[in-house]
Amino acid sequence: MARKVFYISDGTAITAEVFGHAVLSQFPMEFEAITIPFVETNAKAEAVKKQINDSFITTGERPLVFHSIVKPEIRDVIYSSEGLDYDFLNTFVAPLEQQLGVSAAPVLHRTHGKANHSYEARIDAINFAMENDDGQTLKHMDKADIILLGVSRCGKTPSSLYLSMQFGIKAANYPFTEDDMDSLKLPEALKRNKHKLFGLTIDPVRLQEIRQSRMENSRYSSLRQCRMEVKEVEMMFKKERIPYIDTTNHSVEEIATKILDMTGMERHMF
Amino acid sequence: MARKVFYISDGTAITAEVFGHAVLSQFPMEFEAITIPFVETNAKAEAVKKQINDSFITTGERPLVFHSIVKPEIRDVIYSSEGLDYDFLNTFVAPLEQQLGVSAAPVLHRTHGKANHSYEARIDAINFAMENDDGQTLKHMDKADIILLGVSRCGKTPSSLYLSMQFGIKAANYPFTEDDMDSLKLPEALKRNKHKLFGLTIDPVRLQEIRQSRMENSRYSSLRQCRMEVKEVEMMFKKERIPYIDTTNHSVEEIATKILDMTGMERHMF
Repeated sequence: MARKVFYISDGTAITAEVFGHAVLSQFPMEFEAITIPFVETNAKAEAVKKQINDSFITTGERPLVFHSIVKPEIRDVIYSSEGLDYDFLNTFVAPLEQQLGVSAAPVLHRTHGKANHSYEARIDAINFAMENDDGQTLKHMDKADIILLGVSRCGKTPSSLYLSMQFGIKAANYPFTEDDMDSLKLPEALKRNKHKLFGLTIDPVRLQEIRQSRMENSRYSSLRQCRMEVKEVEMMFKKERIPYIDTTNHSVEEIATKILDMTGMERHMF
Repeated sequence: MARKVFYISDGTAITAEVFGHAVLSQFPMEFEAITIPFVETNAKAEAVKKQINDSFITTGERPLVFHSIVKPEIRDVIYSSEGLDYDFLNTFVAPLEQQLGVSAAPVLHRTHGKANHSYEARIDAINFAMENDDGQTLKHMDKADIILLGVSRCGKTPSSLYLSMQFGIKAANYPFTEDDMDSLKLPEALKRNKHKLFGLTIDPVRLQEIRQSRMENSRYSSLRQCRMEVKEVEMMFKKERIPYIDTTNHSVEEIATKILDMTGMERHMF
């Protein structure tokens, strides 16, 4: 049976999840995760403690408990459970206090809260990505931070949205479609913003799989068409000296961070 | 001068950033952060070490180094720098190995890689959120996991996108506009999926600010109009017994996780 894991926080629990997930992904075994956010009151903490203890009784194994709890009195209740505590906030805060010569002043909801000064810029970036997706307009290209190019279904949309959501970057994207293939060229609004262009490409076999699941047995999803489009677009990237990456074996996180790494664009954290 | 912080990884560095940001946000001071992802070779690790050491020489303070480096030989190079290491992977992996009786088998790119079994489902969810944003179609409501409702600019779009991106949830959203206000009612496709409906509301003064920055001095952005729309929509939520939350003082992360918490929907991690 998969080992039980609890991710607990008095905030969103996103940090506890990311932290626990990163640590546990180093182990070649399965875990069964339960996330409990917003544990803000003693009553809720006691209920969570009971849930942890019940899991211990049922399974005979002490559940792993990853938490990022800011309030000391809530943390104490969780500590007193039968779970095995992995408390990365506390583990690192004490040594840091010593190094910095500054006492921590924990404030709830600071990690993923709205207090962050660049919050408005992030929402603007998300709206920008939505409104400038898939070449639906070229009016705002001058305001874009980056413009992703590529064939249909190579990963432009998720990458643009991730760049905006995670890093507050205004990402537009523009597709090259079947009709463009005879004479691939950059529209004027893109030429003018050439330094912002970044290409995505993909293995034609993988592209065909993705297109098949959307539009079965069409010309659009034929291997022949996929091969041709990828080849033409890659040639264009080379000719125009547009930097590009292959998305085939990469997650959205990897594509987005590779783009930032290659372009030297700054990351904003939220 | 702000203390220098490095976030370093042989992967995307997203985990190192989230981890460092969560720890440092407990301190009431400013930091200057530099993120260096994809440190995969010895040569790159040596260059990063030099950068850390240079920063020490220039500022006279040892930089803080948060890292999540999987490869031991890369980690050793970073350890040998003048930075102060905060290595949360290693700190927790050893005690976990003992508890689990299982050796860690570190694999690069597992945390934010594509290997994750539900990766396709996530991309499907992102595409779903895009295609079913802002009520542009009601054809796919039967396939939605959740449908967010609210007035224009109350936070529906960022919340839908975040739910899909972070948790793999198929989130649609539907706006109530000025024209609906005389007799607010749910379209048939929403009525049929009543158990999926979730409302967002917002403080009218804040709403007015947001609308002003998009369409200055219009009826749409008048306080009177904002008040009226919010009041009508909240009344409808109550009458139809649609659960809802106020987004005014909350980040996208908080809104999304509150929705999951209140609906009991499962979170998928990526």
